[in-house]
Amino acid sequence: MTTDATGTGVTEQALASLRGTADPRLRELLTGLVRHLHDFARETRLTQEEWERAIDFLTATGQACTDTRQEFILLSDVLGLSMLVETVNGDRAPGATESTVLGPFHMTESPVRELGADIDLVGGGETCVISGRVLARDGTPLPGAVVDVWQADDKGYYDVQQPGVQPAGNGRGLFTADADGRFWFRTCVPAAYPIPTDGPVGGLLHATGRHPYRPAHIHFIAAAEGHTPVTTHIFVAGGEYLDTDAVFAVKQSLVKDFAETDDPSLAKEFGVPNPFRLARFDLVLEPAA
Amino acid sequence: MTTDATGTGVTEQALASLRGTADPRLRELLTGLVRHLHDFARETRLTQEEWERAIDFLTATGQACTDTRQEFILLSDVLGLSMLVETVNGDRAPGATESTVLGPFHMTESPVRELGADIDLVGGGETCVISGRVLARDGTPLPGAVVDVWQADDKGYYDVQQPGVQPAGNGRGLFTADADGRFWFRTCVPAAYPIPTDGPVGGLLHATGRHPYRPAHIHFIAAAEGHTPVTTHIFVAGGEYLDTDAVFAVKQSLVKDFAETDDPSLAKEFGVPNPFRLARFDLVLEPAA
Repeated sequence: MTTDATGTGVTEQALASLRGTADPRLRELLTGLVRHLHDFARETRLTQEEWERAIDFLTATGQACTDTRQEFILLSDVLGLSMLVETVNGDRAPGATESTVLGPFHMTESPVRELGADIDLVGGGETCVISGRVLARDGTPLPGAVVDVWQADDKGYYDVQQPGVQPAGNGRGLFTADADGRFWFRTCVPAAYPIPTDGPVGGLLHATGRHPYRPAHIHFIAAAEGHTPVTTHIFVAGGEYLDTDAVFAVKQSLVKDFAETDDPSLAKEFGVPNPFRLARFDLVLEPAA
Repeated sequence: MTTDATGTGVTEQALASLRGTADPRLRELLTGLVRHLHDFARETRLTQEEWERAIDFLTATGQACTDTRQEFILLSDVLGLSMLVETVNGDRAPGATESTVLGPFHMTESPVRELGADIDLVGGGETCVISGRVLARDGTPLPGAVVDVWQADDKGYYDVQQPGVQPAGNGRGLFTADADGRFWFRTCVPAAYPIPTDGPVGGLLHATGRHPYRPAHIHFIAAAEGHTPVTTHIFVAGGEYLDTDAVFAVKQSLVKDFAETDDPSLAKEFGVPNPFRLARFDLVLEPAA
C-alpha cells in the first residue's frame, strides 16, 4: 500500500510486480520501461489533465491504424525512436551499407518483377534507372540476393495511400539479383513528400511547428543467404529537406546522385528513352551474426 | 544527418526538432518524453523485432478501445503510471482525503439521484449504506457538494461491461450533499474483480505472471465550490488483494470498515432491512489553489 507523496513507493510496487515475468528479456524491457515512464511523469509532474490528453492521443493513434496506415510507426518515426532503434542495431562495419528506418509504408508484399522491369506503372514522372550490385563486404557478388523496393511516385504518394488512383504494387518490386549480384530496374524519380498529417501525428507536428516533409527517397530491403539483411533508403542528392527529414532518417552515405545521363547506347541497354536519370549504388551486406 | 552508431546524434536531432513548439509546457513534456524514450531504447538496445512487437501491442491497445472500454487507461493502470500521476499531483495536506486512480470505468455520466437512493438497481447483493459528509479541511461542512459514485456490482462487473445484463446507471449515482454537507445512499457491497483480461493488457499481465484482481472498492469524485475536487475510492476492509491491487491504487487511509450493523432504528432511518452493512467516512477537500 502506498503512502508516499513523491510516488517512489508506487514505482517500487510496479517494479516488484514485474519480478515474476518468466521471459528474462521481457522482464528487462518492462522494468526499463516502467522506470523511464515513471521518471518522466515524476520529473515533469505530469498533471491529470495532461495524462488524459496523452491517453486520448494514444487511443486516437491506435484507432487511426488500418490495413494501409500505421499511425504508431509514424509516431515512433517523428519522435526519432524508429531511427534510434535502427541506429543502435545497425552498427555496421565500415563499407557495409548503412541502414535507415523501415517507415510505415512497407505494408503490402512487393510484386515479384523481372530485372529491368518498370515499377512506375502509371508513368508521367521523370524516367530513371536504378542499377547496382548486392555484394558481401569483401566485394564478392551475392547472386540470388533478393532486393525489395518501394517508393512514392513523382507526386509523393505511395500506392496504398491512393487505392483508387494508383494500381496496387505501383512503385514496388521484388527483384532477384543475377549471377553477378546485379539488380536494375526502371522507375520515376520519387518526389519529396509530407508524411500523412490528417491524423494525430499531424496534430503533433503542427503543435511543434515542424514541417512534415521527407526528402525524396527509394526504400530497399536487401537479403542474401548467410548475410544480415539491410533495411535502408537511397536519397536523391540535391533534393529538399535532406537536413530536416521529418523522421531523422538521412545518413550521408545514403545520399546518391540521380545523374542526368545522355547516353543513347546505355539508354538502349536499359530500354529507356534517352536522356534519362541514372542512380548507381551497391548494397553491401554483412555476414550473418 | 546522422552518422553515429550510439544514436546520440538522432536524439539530439529529435530534441532540436521540438525547440519550435509554441506552448512551453508541451515543449517541456515532449522533450522529457523523447529523452526518456530514447534512453530506454538505447539502454535496453531494443531490437527491431521488439520494436515491431511494441508497435503491434500499442496498435492493438488503441483498437481495443470503444465507447465502453478504455484499454490505454488499463495499460497505464497496470504499469503503475496512473497511480503515480495521481500521487505526484495528489500532494494533500494532512486531514484531506487522499486521492487514487480514476480507473477506466468512469465513462458514462452518473444518473442524478436523491440522497438515500439505492444505486443497486438489480439487487441480490449484501445491502449496505454509505454515509458521510463532505467537509473543508477545517471541518466546515460543504453544503451542495457534488458526490459522483460508481462501483462494480456484487459479482464484480460495472454496468458498462454488461450492457444486456445490467441496466445503464447500475452502481452509479450523482448526489448533492444536504445543508450539513451530508451524503448517504444504499447499495450492495462491491466484490473484488479482475480487470478485463481479454485484450492486450490481459496478455501483458499473463506474460508477467500477475493476477488481474482489484480489491473491492467504490469510486468517488467529490467537488465543491472553492475547493479542489478529489478522485478517490474507498476499499472494503478485510477484503482480498488489498496488498496486491493490479493497479497499485490502495492507500491505507482509504480502507474502510463496512461494519455489520444490527440496529433496527438506524436501518429504519436509512430505509434498509436490518441487519445491514454500514460504511461511514467523510470526504475532506482542500481549498482551491
